[in-house]
Formats: sequence, structure tokens, C-alpha cells
Amino acid sequence: MKTSSELSLTPAFDLKGFFHERRALIEGALDSLLPGESVEPVSVHKAIRWSVFAGGKRFRPILMLATGEVFGAPDEVLRATACALEMIHTYSLIHDDLPSMDDDELRRGRPTCHIQFDEATAILAGDALQTLAFQTIAEDSSLSAEQRVLLVSELGRAAGTPRGMVAGQARDLEAESRAVTSGELEQIHRLKTAALIIAAARCGAIIADATDAELEAVGRYAAQLGLLFQITDDLLDVTATVETLGKTPGKDARAQKATYPSLYGIESAHQRADLVHQEACAVLEQIDKPTERLRAIADFILKRDA
Amino acid sequence: MKTSSELSLTPAFDLKGFFHERRALIEGALDSLLPGESVEPVSVHKAIRWSVFAGGKRFRPILMLATGEVFGAPDEVLRATACALEMIHTYSLIHDDLPSMDDDELRRGRPTCHIQFDEATAILAGDALQTLAFQTIAEDSSLSAEQRVLLVSELGRAAGTPRGMVAGQARDLEAESRAVTSGELEQIHRLKTAALIIAAARCGAIIADATDAELEAVGRYAAQLGLLFQITDDLLDVTATVETLGKTPGKDARAQKATYPSLYGIESAHQRADLVHQEACAVLEQIDKPTERLRAIADFILKRDA
Repeated sequence: MKTSSELSLTPAFDLKGFFHERRALIEGALDSLLPGESVEPVSVHKAIRWSVFAGGKRFRPILMLATGEVFGAPDEVLRATACALEMIHTYSLIHDDLPSMDDDELRRGRPTCHIQFDEATAILAGDALQTLAFQTIAEDSSLSAEQRVLLVSELGRAAGTPRGMVAGQARDLEAESRAVTSGELEQIHRLKTAALIIAAARCGAIIADATDAELEAVGRYAAQLGLLFQITDDLLDVTATVETLGKTPGKDARAQKATYPSLYGIESAHQRADLVHQEACAVLEQIDKPTERLRAIADFILKRDA
Repeated sequence: MKTSSELSLTPAFDLKGFFHERRALIEGALDSLLPGESVEPVSVHKAIRWSVFAGGKRFRPILMLATGEVFGAPDEVLRATACALEMIHTYSLIHDDLPSMDDDELRRGRPTCHIQFDEATAILAGDALQTLAFQTIAEDSSLSAEQRVLLVSELGRAAGTPRGMVAGQARDLEAESRAVTSGELEQIHRLKTAALIIAAARCGAIIADATDAELEAVGRYAAQLGLLFQITDDLLDVTATVETLGKTPGKDARAQKATYPSLYGIESAHQRADLVHQEACAVLEQIDKPTERLRAIADFILKRDA
């Protein structure tokens, strides 16, 4: 059965080619920004590269490139900040997987950082990645000092507390093993997942010198995208196999975590995903730029199977 | 028995008054920069304040203020960056104390962060403090964008890998339970302790728009200061009581950690401290500014009993 939004998906834009090219660009840039595996301290640098080059989708940096491109910035000036976003994302995954946090042993089909190395190394790898993210932006000579300062601030707000990723992770841990309302669930995801996705889109627009109104619209689009990302993530945990997912599916249910399917049921969660996708696309209509690639990204998230 | 350098200590500058005033200034500024304990996520913000307001000496921010003042910057423009330095320092203490790292249960006479709260909260508190440090500098409107960018870069290099604090902690862990040469020991301390102390002095000078030659000299002074700090720290671990130290003394020896007293003996470690103190003071002679307060800080570190 096709839903209404699936029928209206954008056919024109070659998203596969776009993702493929931008992913290669990001991975090349990450490779040159990260210390080599033979640089001391070897353990930490091996752990960093183990986690950064683990086959991630590069969703945040690609979204950032796409947004910057929509507003007219060339990839050369977007690249370093895109890598900084991926560094922050990867540091958060390394720390979230730790035994005292989500205690995950498998990610993207491979041992997590503290399993492959050890806990101390994983903590330090995450710490160093966070540092390098901010340093990378501060030292990006292709941007003005004013832009760099805005980007560090934007990324800091999205990554920290009280309104960013760390706040989301803290609230998520606190909410485990107690009943969570749908409002609380959305708030947790907004902090834990959407904040950095919103920052990704806004950082692209900041570098392209978008207007305040454009920045605001792009932020609203990305907020919907972040929500959509989380709903489809929860649905995949129920419906996917270990092969397509690269981690053990059904983990949320066993951990009695509040998820969209557990709160609304699978069918309603799908409907909610459709609705959120439509809202994201509606925001794009208000932006007077060629936003096809942002529309295509929303389509992709709705339909993703991994 | 007085050593030669103790006889030549600077009597004129009122270091006690200086430390007292600057400490109050830093603590007031930290209080306004850190989220309140009632702000969600409450657990993380309580943990942050527990560790930041644990009676620390504020050595790094005070050194930064002193250096900035020597080169003519007013405290108002130094304050936020001084707090950022203390945030980075505190985040590193929280993470270093974790069970998988140094496994410390007591710091400054109080339970460490993961003992008072839990491990997950301590990891997140450290993560959020690091983020806030960079964000604080980026958002300090009393500085030019160019200055902020230089400061984020300086602090990032001092805090991360391959040449900063995290690299030092990784090498320190790696060096545990094996024989360490004196060269390796100095390298570890240079990264783990001196890097951030050097950054503190340089950040003060950067904000005061010091010349490159002045920046370089201040960095050399602070490198000696960092070394001196570590030698006296190691000596205190051997000679101090739990009361003056606020943590269990003798821990290094029991852990068979390489320290200056264990490598050189107590008497030679004292002599080495004297020599390093003299070298720090000799660098100050080359700076054509009123450096009394920097000299007094070096005196203080040499004589400290806690």
C-alpha cells in the first residue's frame, strides 16, 4: 500500500548520485583533518578513525552541504564545517555506546569503540573528536572570522546543554524505565537528534550568508526532518533485520524504551511520518531558492530502509 | 633549609590579595555562565556545579588574567575566556577520575563527580562543560571575532590531540605499569598539564594584542611554570597529608606511577623545582612589561603546600 506522500515523491533530482558524491567528498576531507593512525597517541587516533570510518551515512554533513548549496555557497567553503558536524555526531555515538550509558556492543555491524579498544580509549577518542570539531571550524581560513564564530556558537548550542544533544541524552537516560508521554518523547528527540540536524542545515545557510528569514525557515524544515529521522529510526528498530540495520533490531522494545511505534502503534507511526514529511516539504515551498535537493533528502528519510 | 631560589623570592607583590580577588571574580563569572541547578537536565547541571565549585585554586584562569593584565588588557575582556579555561580543566578532571581512567573517588576532600552522581552523568557533565567552554569564547561579544577564533584554536590545540591534554592523558594511561624514562615523563606532563597552562598564558596575551615575540616568551614562561606545577604536585603526593591535599596522598607511589620523586629522589626533585623556577623567572626578564605578578605566581607554585 502506498501512502499519499509516497505517491508525490520528487522523481527529478538524482539523490543517489548526490549522496554518493557528497559522501566521498566528506570522507576525503575527514581523512585529511583527522590525525593519522601512526600519530601518537596511536590508541586514541586508531579509535577515532575506527568510529569515524565505520560506514556512517554522513547524513548531517550531507544535509549541511545541500543547504549551503541551495543558498549558493560552493562546497570548498562548506567542507570543513561539514566534517566538524560529523565529528560531533561521532563523538556522541562513541560516548552514548559506553557501558554506563546505552551499553551497546555493536554499531553498523561492527564492535563499538569501547569493545574494539577499551573504555578509557573510547572516552578520550570522543573527547578529542569534540575538541577537534570546534578547532576545525576556528581554523577554517576559507571562512570569515565572523562566520566561524557564528558556527562555533551554533554547533555549541546544538551539542551541549540545556538545549542540545547532551541534554537530550541525559533526559533519555533519566526517562528509561518509567512511563514517558508523547510530549516528553518528542522533547527528548528534539534535543538528542533534531538539534544537531537543525544546526547542520543552519550552518550551511550561515556560510552561504542566507538572510535571517531564510535561516529560520531552514531551521523549521530541519526540525521536521529530525523528527522524521527519529520516527523512521524507531520504525526500523521494529521492522528491519539485523543485516539491513547493522545493529540488533528490537533492542528498544526489549529495553522498554518509549518509541513512536510503542506509543502510537506501527500504522499510526507510519502516518505520523507521512505527516511530518509533508510539513517539511511545506516549509521548503516558502523558500525562494531551488530546494529540490532538500526535498529529495526528506523523501529519502521517509523511505529509508537502513 | 632554604634553597637559593626561596631566598630570592619576590616580596613586593601582594599575591594573596591578588589571588583572592581574581578568584572571586572568576567564581562570580562562572556562576553566571553555567546553567542553574534547577535548569533541565537537572542531573547534569548539578554535576557540573558540583565539580566546578569544588574549591579549586583557579590556577589557570588566574594565570590567564595575570598575563592579560601584564600586557594591558582589562579584566572585563579576559573574564569569559578565563572561565572557558576552567571549564576545560574541570571537564578533564571529571573524565580523568572515571573508573576506566584513574578511578579516583576523592578530589579536594569531596567525592568525585561519578561517585556523587553516577558514571553516565559524570561523562555527560564533562562533555557539556567542554562544549560550553568553546561556546563561551565564541559568544564573548567583548572580543573581536578574530580574537575569538584565535582563542578557540589555541584552546582546542591545548585540550585535544595530538599535542594537548587528551594526548597526555592517553600516554599517561599507556605508560602505567611499565618503566618510563625521564624524557617520556616530561613529555607526558607537557601534554597533560603544561599544554593548558601555556594556553592560559597565551590566551591572556592574545586578548591584550601582545606581539608575536611577547606571545612566544609568555609561552616559554608558562611551559616552565607547568613543569614546576607538576614537580611540586608529585612532591606533595609524597610529603603532604590527606588534610592539606584533599585527596589521598601516596596514591602515585602505590600505583607505581612514574613521578619526579620516584625517578630522581625527593631531594633532587626539589632541586629540579628550584632550577625550573629560575628558568621561568629568567624568561620574564626578557619581557619589557611589569611582570611582577607572573614572577609572584612562579614563587607561589614553588612554595605551595596544597
